[in-house]
Amino acid sequence: MSESTVDGVGYAADGPVATVTFTKPERNNAMDVPMQARYGALLRQADADPAVRAVVVTGAGKAFCPGADLGLLDNLAAKPPSDGGGHENFRDVLAAATVGVPVIAAINGGCAGLGFVIACAADVRFAAAGAKFTTAFARRGLIAEYGIAKLLPELVGRGRARDLLLSGRTFTAEQAKEYGLVQEVVPAEELGLRAHAYATELATHSAPRSMAVMKAQFEREAALPLEEAAREATALMIESFGRPELAEGLASWNERRPPEFPPHPAVS
Amino acid sequence: MSESTVDGVGYAADGPVATVTFTKPERNNAMDVPMQARYGALLRQADADPAVRAVVVTGAGKAFCPGADLGLLDNLAAKPPSDGGGHENFRDVLAAATVGVPVIAAINGGCAGLGFVIACAADVRFAAAGAKFTTAFARRGLIAEYGIAKLLPELVGRGRARDLLLSGRTFTAEQAKEYGLVQEVVPAEELGLRAHAYATELATHSAPRSMAVMKAQFEREAALPLEEAAREATALMIESFGRPELAEGLASWNERRPPEFPPHPAVS
Amino acid sequence: MSESTVDGVGYAADGPVATVTFTKPERNNAMDVPMQARYGALLRQADADPAVRAVVVTGAGKAFCPGADLGLLDNLAAKPPSDGGGHENFRDVLAAATVGVPVIAAINGGCAGLGFVIACAADVRFAAAGAKFTTAFARRGLIAEYGIAKLLPELVGRGRARDLLLSGRTFTAEQAKEYGLVQEVVPAEELGLRAHAYATELATHSAPRSMAVMKAQFEREAALPLEEAAREATALMIESFGRPELAEGLASWNERRPPEFPPHPAVS
Repeated sequence: MSESTVDGVGYAADGPVATVTFTKPERNNAMDVPMQARYGALLRQADADPAVRAVVVTGAGKAFCPGADLGLLDNLAAKPPSDGGGHENFRDVLAAATVGVPVIAAINGGCAGLGFVIACAADVRFAAAGAKFTTAFARRGLIAEYGIAKLLPELVGRGRARDLLLSGRTFTAEQAKEYGLVQEVVPAEELGLRAHAYATELATHSAPRSMAVMKAQFEREAALPLEEAAREATALMIESFGRPELAEGLASWNERRPPEFPPHPAVS
Repeated sequence: MSESTVDGVGYAADGPVATVTFTKPERNNAMDVPMQARYGALLRQADADPAVRAVVVTGAGKAFCPGADLGLLDNLAAKPPSDGGGHENFRDVLAAATVGVPVIAAINGGCAGLGFVIACAADVRFAAAGAKFTTAFARRGLIAEYGIAKLLPELVGRGRARDLLLSGRTFTAEQAKEYGLVQEVVPAEELGLRAHAYATELATHSAPRSMAVMKAQFEREAALPLEEAAREATALMIESFGRPELAEGLASWNERRPPEFPPHPAVS
Repeated sequence: MSESTVDGVGYAADGPVATVTFTKPERNNAMDVPMQARYGALLRQADADPAVRAVVVTGAGKAFCPGADLGLLDNLAAKPPSDGGGHENFRDVLAAATVGVPVIAAINGGCAGLGFVIACAADVRFAAAGAKFTTAFARRGLIAEYGIAKLLPELVGRGRARDLLLSGRTFTAEQAKEYGLVQEVVPAEELGLRAHAYATELATHSAPRSMAVMKAQFEREAALPLEEAAREATALMIESFGRPELAEGLASWNERRPPEFPPHPAVS
């Protein structure tokens, strides 16, 4: 396993599963700008690496991520940026939703504000029992940042999303499961193993290209009328018929053995 | 506390929380056109009042609102309106979703038809144990009125929304909770207090401007691709950095005291 | 009761409830192209028949439908279609979502791939206890077929939809209920009766025209801003005021008797 930590974010590859870890436990993994940028860069790096088939995102220490570093917010409140533009760091915050590789959030503890958005942008969420969540924004005088006003209703429905964003109240992992926000709650000491096992299941049984195509389909087809979504899907299905993934998917199924899908993107 | 009742709708202000009450218990709060108009006008009045930071909507007596007054419907069936236009009263029915101030429905009893749409347009719903719900429309030969064909799937998902609208069957507060339609079920005698406490929590801890901006974001960003939603949110975030709400949000957080957010709209 | 089976799909009419049954139990109801076409044609036939007011779709034997016939997929993998077009059979797969008559899926057993999409396109889903579900696509090297990338998030939310489509894992009827995918789980031996009773309830109490209009509203209004959805609904509501359905809906309500709604489409 190779490991490295730069700008407060660690990266470790373990076979087909890469783990991205926020590594400022002394600050509860509060995010500054370089840390955000590094997080986005690492997800894009994992996505471009044919050896990586699934990514787990988690935090070192007791918290997942409580949001932006308050010192950073203090500075912004004292001296707001004058350019009003050039702020494209939402691309880093939402990277999990835009890369083709599947991303699993393993929420080990406190998850708030910007950290909450990062967790919501992941494909699937596992949480440690007892972990605390809050959107936080309304209680700081902020707005629904980084597209969370779109993501949260898609995750938990219209009513619960308004409750959570308007109130900024704290809720538990167990409530998050009830709301449909996290897919599974596990004891804290088993969280890493469980998320890794799920990532390994994706890496073992699902074709990397299928997952990448599906992730793009989710974002595009949601906005289309059903029959147009189906028409697009039909074109993609016909493309898939000629690919080695289908042949291997059927052969492994017929032979009752694990598939050996080619990487995506392909090794050139 | 000031109180008034006009056209079957009462209004009471209690500090930052206003309560709008349907006050025709002798008719189970069935709605006629002046009552609808009054309801919309009161929500807009609350929204324009800097002293009001949250609104509770409820019904006097045993019912919340069973829908349009059947006498009104009988008249419409006997003599349908010939102009086919000028029917803008959907603005009143949906007022809770379009004003900037948060609106909590406290569903004290029977909730059907038009009353059901009014409840669904609120941001958050609390219901009295045992309260009965029904969409009713299909059983009266009507259609999915006032945008409920859009609201209900956003609240309870595609399958349950079709079940409830196509069947027009009756269901309970407890089922409504299970479906995600209401956020909390409480004993009937505690409903008013619970909804008021939640409204007070919003009024105390959430910045009024943050809530108003978020409510507009929900409606707009749902229709945008994720990255465009995030781009819009980034522009709103940058605006928020220079506002007194952020400074107060951070100061109160750092000082472990309740915030004193300015009203929204600002007192001129 | 009249019955017929053509191309592996049976059709039986029992008063106002028609039942469409996949009848290749010896192949677990795996679908070939004629079977898909027949399924779509039968739903359109039921929709055009004024005597039919609700449709139940189910499978003969132990499975509902495990998806496309693997022999068919083997052929496609070996010799992909060269025309790349003319594949309009998504219209058959999604027919339940586009016809005006309500369609209830009675999922008696294994439900996967194409069979999973067919079930998701129905308005309401009942499942037999113990029935197994899987999207399957990612494990065969395929993509999110026939608009399921749009349907599934609408049914179970953004997180669970990604879990189920990316992993292709198997889950049970009980989990499907917890996710909001199926509306009710019943013992296998009661499934047919329960689905038929629900269909009969729709046929007895809901105006056929109301249901047809609502189904079209769902698909259109989801994409509109709330006030535009409400404006469209207002126009449809005004149309409904002059129709016999409203008069009968009110009369039967006032007289505490079952309604006798006219068929839709009307008998000419």
